[in-house]
Amino acid sequence: MRNAGGGGSGIHDQERDVDAEKDEKVKINRSPKVPVRLPAIVVASILTLFTSSQGVLTTLSQTDGGYTYDYGTVPFLAELLKLGVSATLLWREMRRGGPVKLTKDWRSIRLFPIPSIIYVVHNNIQFATLTYVDTSTYQILGNLKIVTTAILFRTFLKRKLSKLQWIAIVLLTLGTTTSQLKGCGAKSCEGLLVAPIQGYLLAILSACLSAMAGVYTEYLMKKNDDSLHWQNVQLYSFGVLFNGMRLSGGDFNEGFSNGVWFARLFSGYNFVTLLVVLNLGCTGLLVSWIMKFADNIVKVYATSMAMLLTMVLSIILFNFVPTLQLFIGIAICGISLQIYFTPPQQLVEQPTIPR
Amino acid sequence: MRNAGGGGSGIHDQERDVDAEKDEKVKINRSPKVPVRLPAIVVASILTLFTSSQGVLTTLSQTDGGYTYDYGTVPFLAELLKLGVSATLLWREMRRGGPVKLTKDWRSIRLFPIPSIIYVVHNNIQFATLTYVDTSTYQILGNLKIVTTAILFRTFLKRKLSKLQWIAIVLLTLGTTTSQLKGCGAKSCEGLLVAPIQGYLLAILSACLSAMAGVYTEYLMKKNDDSLHWQNVQLYSFGVLFNGMRLSGGDFNEGFSNGVWFARLFSGYNFVTLLVVLNLGCTGLLVSWIMKFADNIVKVYATSMAMLLTMVLSIILFNFVPTLQLFIGIAICGISLQIYFTPPQQLVEQPTIPR
Repeated sequence: MRNAGGGGSGIHDQERDVDAEKDEKVKINRSPKVPVRLPAIVVASILTLFTSSQGVLTTLSQTDGGYTYDYGTVPFLAELLKLGVSATLLWREMRRGGPVKLTKDWRSIRLFPIPSIIYVVHNNIQFATLTYVDTSTYQILGNLKIVTTAILFRTFLKRKLSKLQWIAIVLLTLGTTTSQLKGCGAKSCEGLLVAPIQGYLLAILSACLSAMAGVYTEYLMKKNDDSLHWQNVQLYSFGVLFNGMRLSGGDFNEGFSNGVWFARLFSGYNFVTLLVVLNLGCTGLLVSWIMKFADNIVKVYATSMAMLLTMVLSIILFNFVPTLQLFIGIAICGISLQIYFTPPQQLVEQPTIPR
Repeated sequence: MRNAGGGGSGIHDQERDVDAEKDEKVKINRSPKVPVRLPAIVVASILTLFTSSQGVLTTLSQTDGGYTYDYGTVPFLAELLKLGVSATLLWREMRRGGPVKLTKDWRSIRLFPIPSIIYVVHNNIQFATLTYVDTSTYQILGNLKIVTTAILFRTFLKRKLSKLQWIAIVLLTLGTTTSQLKGCGAKSCEGLLVAPIQGYLLAILSACLSAMAGVYTEYLMKKNDDSLHWQNVQLYSFGVLFNGMRLSGGDFNEGFSNGVWFARLFSGYNFVTLLVVLNLGCTGLLVSWIMKFADNIVKVYATSMAMLLTMVLSIILFNFVPTLQLFIGIAICGISLQIYFTPPQQLVEQPTIPR
């Protein structure tokens, strides 16, 4: 495309070469061998901040410790927001006249509801798991998602990871788990491995499904060079559809005692609730960007760091008591981050010591 | 020495070359760049087993939860045992007629009481620290010794450590600390940073002194190629002397109400107490070997792994309750061990994936 059009002065040709060189550099930077580059770091950092503020905003949106609104409508509105933003960006992109690649073949479109379907199955498995294990055990077991994501990333996307990167991923899992260990004197005390075996198996299945949704989305986003906005429009259309179906199903199960869900949209919402919707929408869009231009491992790091940041913010904002395990967990995750993303040669070189 | 003696057939010369090549290989293996080699691994493993059985044996030597003997006499007898073994080995080495290097200069000998002096100061600091912080906080802070050892190892012995090896050392500290975190529902509960600042400063000083004793001993053992047994004879002679002085001082402070210490030697000892002495003696000899032929970092790994092994043995032998933090701590320390000792190229190479 850049080489098409022909003609033009030598100066212009030179400019084109410079541009081509830039493109080449971008390509090199985007190769899987160097998994980090400036824009991905910036996007991942923003994703970390947005994800960590999600829990804080949700807490702040409550009145007297409860919701004045139907929390189930929040993800629906977030999907709708993402669809609206993506459709607008796609429209602008097409209006600018550049060649926008859109694959409209049904054999491609039919792949886009799959992440939504996996999430629906995942939500049900999660519900079943919680009948066997308590929420804090579920949270601890949820860290398995980091390892399962790496395994599927390696198996299905055929991405190469060095032994040191595997070590980093295991460390991230150990670090997030450490940060969640109950402190000495915690009120509810769960012994080790006391839940029935079904609970653990379901938790592992849950971790696999969650990883599968992520890895599959990355596959979808990268399988061709379609416009990100077009891919998002497809993804979020099905998201809106499945969320609407979930809300309808809920109403049906309750015999429409609360009326129909679309009549409850925005009812009882306050300003912070709108911020929660906005935040959830932005987080989703950032994740899509990460899936297309970075990868699942970058996303896993962003969400793990966000979890730790939420715990630190909770200490500051809600007077939570800091535990030694939180500090140790943060240190381990920090080391994991450094091991995964530092160029290996910098890690292994022997320093020269002046004598 | 191998090149001396001259004469001999070409075949013998060839044999010598092969031998020289073997020596060369041994030398290469012992270079600080590859910090691990088979014999050191074996010695370090034996040290780990001996150190871990120490706590178990000491517990087993008690009768009805108390000592029937004066525990203070145990280290004295262990020093005496080490001195006897080293003197015997030195005598055998000299009788074999090979050239045994012994530096008998007073300027060298006067350096050998220094580790004992550091230990005396350390013991007193430890005593002072425990008036400010409780034993489990002291144990947690004691993990700082790993980092202080690495810092002194780098500063005084001018040993090179790659960034990855520093990361491994910090991970070892975090791993041992995690394993010691009190479980949910522990009886005595200490908050984070509740002891007075003096307690923490003394604990840091204690960690520095402990590291200094180790690093200084390594310096002593490696400063020349004197016979290990001769170096040990000097080291343990002062050890016997200082332990005797400590016991005498104790008797003096108690107004000789229990008589003199050498009359109490072996009194109330049972078979297991003798095993404790034997174990302590062997551990000391193994540490000396590690200091001469390996280094302080190998020793730190051996003693850290021993601490974890003791905890696992306590679960099996004394029905201690296993905690999740113990498993996580073991995993982190295992990763640290792997990062520190695996040749870096094996860690960073990208695998080739068949498509």
